[in-house]
Amino acid sequence: MIEGINMDKRPIGIFDSGIGGLTVAKEIFACLPREDIVYFGDTARVPYGTKSPQTVKKFSCSNTKFLMSQKVKIVIVACNTASATSFGKLRAEFPSIPIIGVIGPAVKLALMCTKNKKIGVIGTESTISSNAYLKEIRKFKSNVSLFGQSCPLFVPLVEEGWIDRKETLLIAKKYLTPLKRKKIDALILGCTHYPMLKSVIKKIMGKGVAVIDSARAVAEKCKKVLEEKGLFNGKKRNGWHKFFVSDNPLRFKRAGQKFLGRKIDKVAQIDIG
Amino acid sequence: MIEGINMDKRPIGIFDSGIGGLTVAKEIFACLPREDIVYFGDTARVPYGTKSPQTVKKFSCSNTKFLMSQKVKIVIVACNTASATSFGKLRAEFPSIPIIGVIGPAVKLALMCTKNKKIGVIGTESTISSNAYLKEIRKFKSNVSLFGQSCPLFVPLVEEGWIDRKETLLIAKKYLTPLKRKKIDALILGCTHYPMLKSVIKKIMGKGVAVIDSARAVAEKCKKVLEEKGLFNGKKRNGWHKFFVSDNPLRFKRAGQKFLGRKIDKVAQIDIG
Repeated sequence: MIEGINMDKRPIGIFDSGIGGLTVAKEIFACLPREDIVYFGDTARVPYGTKSPQTVKKFSCSNTKFLMSQKVKIVIVACNTASATSFGKLRAEFPSIPIIGVIGPAVKLALMCTKNKKIGVIGTESTISSNAYLKEIRKFKSNVSLFGQSCPLFVPLVEEGWIDRKETLLIAKKYLTPLKRKKIDALILGCTHYPMLKSVIKKIMGKGVAVIDSARAVAEKCKKVLEEKGLFNGKKRNGWHKFFVSDNPLRFKRAGQKFLGRKIDKVAQIDIG
Repeated sequence: MIEGINMDKRPIGIFDSGIGGLTVAKEIFACLPREDIVYFGDTARVPYGTKSPQTVKKFSCSNTKFLMSQKVKIVIVACNTASATSFGKLRAEFPSIPIIGVIGPAVKLALMCTKNKKIGVIGTESTISSNAYLKEIRKFKSNVSLFGQSCPLFVPLVEEGWIDRKETLLIAKKYLTPLKRKKIDALILGCTHYPMLKSVIKKIMGKGVAVIDSARAVAEKCKKVLEEKGLFNGKKRNGWHKFFVSDNPLRFKRAGQKFLGRKIDKVAQIDIG
């Protein structure tokens, strides 16, 4: 990129059902420090993972509309359930802006990692039953097997802060044992909350299994799209980060710090209803 | 009641954040078989227990407005979080109609059961931090101690159908041990999901502790109010039961049967947004 040419001062927009997407935001902040960023967490309607595709599509559209009102130049769907159910719909409804989901980057990484061509994916009920990961894999490979497992208790466990407890280990064993038996050698964390449980998951799956957290891959994909389309900010100073939520900001501030690894100062509440 | 006098053909309205309120509906169906009933489960915005009082108030008002549009004669708030945070607001906003919450009836029952004047209450984060149960107790008794404990994983465990699992027992022990140590002799199940875990809870608390499920008490309170205000239906045949939800009805039908103990036939989806 030649500075001054093809620059775009508008912020990057990110949305998630709540705080989970902050694991993605954290990587985008690190990867694109000069960019201004608007993050929206739909904390009044969280979670998405147990709701129907139709309802998640409706929520994803209203979230994207909000980000558009903030004049963003690109939208990152930092939520697996929204990516799995609503990606096509969002691209059709908002053709004027690039939209990046979390599924494509995770699948590319998993395909690079697997040697025995057996990949596992864990996620919410809606994500797993959408078959979105399998559809994405089939775009590139027909000889790779995918084994899915929904883990509905992982999000509440993370939200409750029960990261290192024996109860969490027991529940994780229950969910992951069927995947272990399939002898997968790559496991996609198909929910933005799950990186918080990475050490427990690694412990159960063992060293031979690559545990794939798509956050970094999503950030790199975002960088690549901005570069290709000439949308870099071109600032010399660090960008600002604005946070919006649909429920009271207090809980988001408190819990979000664990996901982001730093303090969250200002969070504004909006009415998304 | 003298039949034919002071009768009111309008249905009873019940709302909950989702399926939990069906434990209350079940008792109302049994207690008032001649009444027509409209049940609304706000499955698109569930759960309420981790959301702020302001947001739950907003949701409770929109749910009540929907029930009013169905021309109900009484509103049952079959959700502890909504009762704890929004009961006063609902009474003020909808003065034309009697409104019954789940907290008053549960407290009356607990006060009748306790001998050592030490009561426990378990519920969602919002219910426990609202102090609504203590405020209700203080209306009648100043010499009764109340010990609260939020159990955020109970709702996801019930929704996942993990009723009799060892993981559930372990988690329940973790939550309930502090209350056991306080030597309470009555425990209020302050969430309409929790009756599904009654046997696990009883096992941990032991025989000396009365486990109080308010559903029956709420149904009796409803009957009493209808009688006092001359609002009985007066039908000779059994009433009809209509179910509405804000997300896709499939999950509600499937999971709701466990709560209601019978098949749910027709469920309509409405846009509450």
